Amino acid sequence: MARSVTILGAGLVGSLLSIILKKRGYEVTLYERRPDMRKASIAAGRSINLAMSARGWKALDLAGLRSDMEMLAIPMNGRYLHQADGSAAFQQYGKNNEAIYSVSRGELNKKLMTLAEQEGVNIHFEHRCTKVDVYSNTLHFELPDGTTKTEVADLLFGADGAFSALRNSYVTMERVDASQFYLEHGYKELNIPPNEDGSLRMEKNALHIWPRKNFMLIALPNTDGTFTCTLFLPFEGEVSFAALKTEEDVKKFFATHFPDAVPMMPTLIEDFFGNPTSALITTHIKPWHFKDKSALIGDAAHAIVPFYGQGMNAGFEDCTVLAGLLDAYGSDWNTILQHYDRMRKPNGDAVAQLALLNFVEMRDKVADPVFLERKKIEKELGKLFPEQFISVYEMVSFSHIPYDTALRCIQAQDQLLGRIMNEGDFFAKDMNNGFDSMLRNWVNDYHQSVQQLDFGNEG
Amino acid sequence: MARSVTILGAGLVGSLLSIILKKRGYEVTLYERRPDMRKASIAAGRSINLAMSARGWKALDLAGLRSDMEMLAIPMNGRYLHQADGSAAFQQYGKNNEAIYSVSRGELNKKLMTLAEQEGVNIHFEHRCTKVDVYSNTLHFELPDGTTKTEVADLLFGADGAFSALRNSYVTMERVDASQFYLEHGYKELNIPPNEDGSLRMEKNALHIWPRKNFMLIALPNTDGTFTCTLFLPFEGEVSFAALKTEEDVKKFFATHFPDAVPMMPTLIEDFFGNPTSALITTHIKPWHFKDKSALIGDAAHAIVPFYGQGMNAGFEDCTVLAGLLDAYGSDWNTILQHYDRMRKPNGDAVAQLALLNFVEMRDKVADPVFLERKKIEKELGKLFPEQFISVYEMVSFSHIPYDTALRCIQAQDQLLGRIMNEGDFFAKDMNNGFDSMLRNWVNDYHQSVQQLDFGNEG
Repeated sequence: MARSVTILGAGLVGSLLSIILKKRGYEVTLYERRPDMRKASIAAGRSINLAMSARGWKALDLAGLRSDMEMLAIPMNGRYLHQADGSAAFQQYGKNNEAIYSVSRGELNKKLMTLAEQEGVNIHFEHRCTKVDVYSNTLHFELPDGTTKTEVADLLFGADGAFSALRNSYVTMERVDASQFYLEHGYKELNIPPNEDGSLRMEKNALHIWPRKNFMLIALPNTDGTFTCTLFLPFEGEVSFAALKTEEDVKKFFATHFPDAVPMMPTLIEDFFGNPTSALITTHIKPWHFKDKSALIGDAAHAIVPFYGQGMNAGFEDCTVLAGLLDAYGSDWNTILQHYDRMRKPNGDAVAQLALLNFVEMRDKVADPVFLERKKIEKELGKLFPEQFISVYEMVSFSHIPYDTALRCIQAQDQLLGRIMNEGDFFAKDMNNGFDSMLRNWVNDYHQSVQQLDFGNEG
Repeated sequence: MARSVTILGAGLVGSLLSIILKKRGYEVTLYERRPDMRKASIAAGRSINLAMSARGWKALDLAGLRSDMEMLAIPMNGRYLHQADGSAAFQQYGKNNEAIYSVSRGELNKKLMTLAEQEGVNIHFEHRCTKVDVYSNTLHFELPDGTTKTEVADLLFGADGAFSALRNSYVTMERVDASQFYLEHGYKELNIPPNEDGSLRMEKNALHIWPRKNFMLIALPNTDGTFTCTLFLPFEGEVSFAALKTEEDVKKFFATHFPDAVPMMPTLIEDFFGNPTSALITTHIKPWHFKDKSALIGDAAHAIVPFYGQGMNAGFEDCTVLAGLLDAYGSDWNTILQHYDRMRKPNGDAVAQLALLNFVEMRDKVADPVFLERKKIEKELGKLFPEQFISVYEMVSFSHIPYDTALRCIQAQDQLLGRIMNEGDFFAKDMNNGFDSMLRNWVNDYHQSVQQLDFGNEG
């Protein structure tokens, strides 16, 4: 008899996981802290939109939701850079014009919940889990009327986000390693409405960035013609949220640093003072599972910063990997959870690191012409040496190569690109004049230095 | 009017802190989770004895307890090494025969509690703090009869150890960074009784070590003629606590690795199976304080592993520094707690790192004759160049130089000693043959590379 499964959290990962397990014959019950977002008008969590890339789509295939979501997804084929000097630049993400996709977090979550219920998953809303007794799998809930109740889970998943109740209970157990740390930067969401005729005010198929070294503004397109903007800025210091106290402060700050954005933001002041300033947490924990009884998944296992657009994608890949283990090991949950932990933990750590590194890339490096040149050369290398070279960005966003492998390739790619760029203008080279064989040697050196890594089925 | 102070934890640091504050005119109330150890026969916490060194003595001076404790303290002037080949070696700690002191944790704690009460501190035992509301300084307690009570603190200190209730409450606040991690090794206390005539079975004035690379046994002398032994061993693996299941397993393990210790341990089997196997945690947190309302101190702020014998010494130094800030800033607790945090946090991080590094030194490096030779050269350098060179070990144990400075000197000392030892047998050198000037240059190089660090008043 299949075990019954309890999942904490009906967010993106919890809802998807419930569908995957229900389709395999498990009884699945979901407990969600918030009211049903399909009925109440509430925020769908941390951000309005997210960037879906290859790992996310693959998991949606498992749920049969790809085509539904493709209709609502806006491809972003590159970064549209609004430089400080007023110039603009477009930096393509992939060598084959691949895109990441702007998707409404709320719409995706609602669809996943509805599909889960259609499959027969039972979702209990407004159940706040306050504590888990990990040894007995006893869940303690608080209801909106202040009453409490307890349930005993058979097999339990914590898909309940960065401040997961299951994670918090793991942390109190002996020999559980854990960390949480916050960036000095916070973020605030702002808005760019459409033109009066409903058309978009900026290039639709791009992720817009205003890189300003230690801070930045970004904007992602929505299907209703708006852009969701996010300002990332230190909480404290000379240029900081703390320093923006009055309307005048805010107006002056935006006029100074984002003059081209100001005319597109008629509700800037209302948005700025009406919307919260939120913090950016990164968490680690070890282990991710307890015996054959429970496991953490998604942000509950690895809350990361949003700068690689991989939070949801990483959580969805947790689900894909788990589905593969179910195929391989049937109902042997002891083995399944052990393998899940062993396979996913290094990748959770790696994507956390990649996301932190990409913050520096987005807010600072993309303002540098030398860096943009490097990105172009990377794409060219990928075309010239498709068997040997794929850029780290492409590994992360357009492949299923383990995050840990992508992270481990950074240093070797830095070395390779350093060698190439030391030789002067790459695109002006005469490839028949010895440079081609030198380049081939360098790429071979690179390839040899990384080929022992696990590239999955895509190496 | 002076603020009233509430302290969580009547362990070593909490009790000492209460005395320091009471002597300065504050009303002080202590809450302790355990029963009164002066009445009940209970374990005094994590270990039976501890190693008191310079920082600990300095703080005891503040409480006026130095002479009382000196009578109960056994100087250990060096490490007595019981090597795997059956040979023994004595490695002096300091160049002037300085000692660290084996002190009974329980006796010291009892004396501090009694002195606190004599000064007028109110100690409430068997009050387990379950939660702190950090904003309102409301403390929630659970009493032995199952009832609960709440108290509101004016100024609050969490001296309640690695699993501090105040720390746990800080961790749930936004933008608080925190980590906990455990060693793969656990520890178990064992016992060496005196000879039948009451005399000690081994050298009294030494810290005994049986270094065995990935594990070790140590023994510290007690005033009753016994030695407290501690076995540090991985929890799992081929050679581990998990592998020692039967009496035969334990006997064979000790006979193989510690044959000289076995005849001195008549109760080995009872001790081994009767005493718990405990874990070794290291914690970090940031910040250490909240406004002018509360602060963490001792293990609550920086739980560290015991391998440098600095846990209590670091906590006592927190008290000394705080006392200095009270002298400097009077009742301006906003400034006092800000400075306390800024001054102590880097040193808490550093002593945690030093303690982890010293584990490798104790269990592995001291088995290596080259390392013992290095230690001798370090002492000689300290004599030849007293203004320029003091070994990291001496900084930590025999000085008040900030831990952070000691940690930052490691690399430069490694380089200096590497240079010297590359030249062959140091003690066979003819100092009048050019070697002396080369040595002087190298020491000057070292001194220049570290002289910008903060050596406090002892630089």
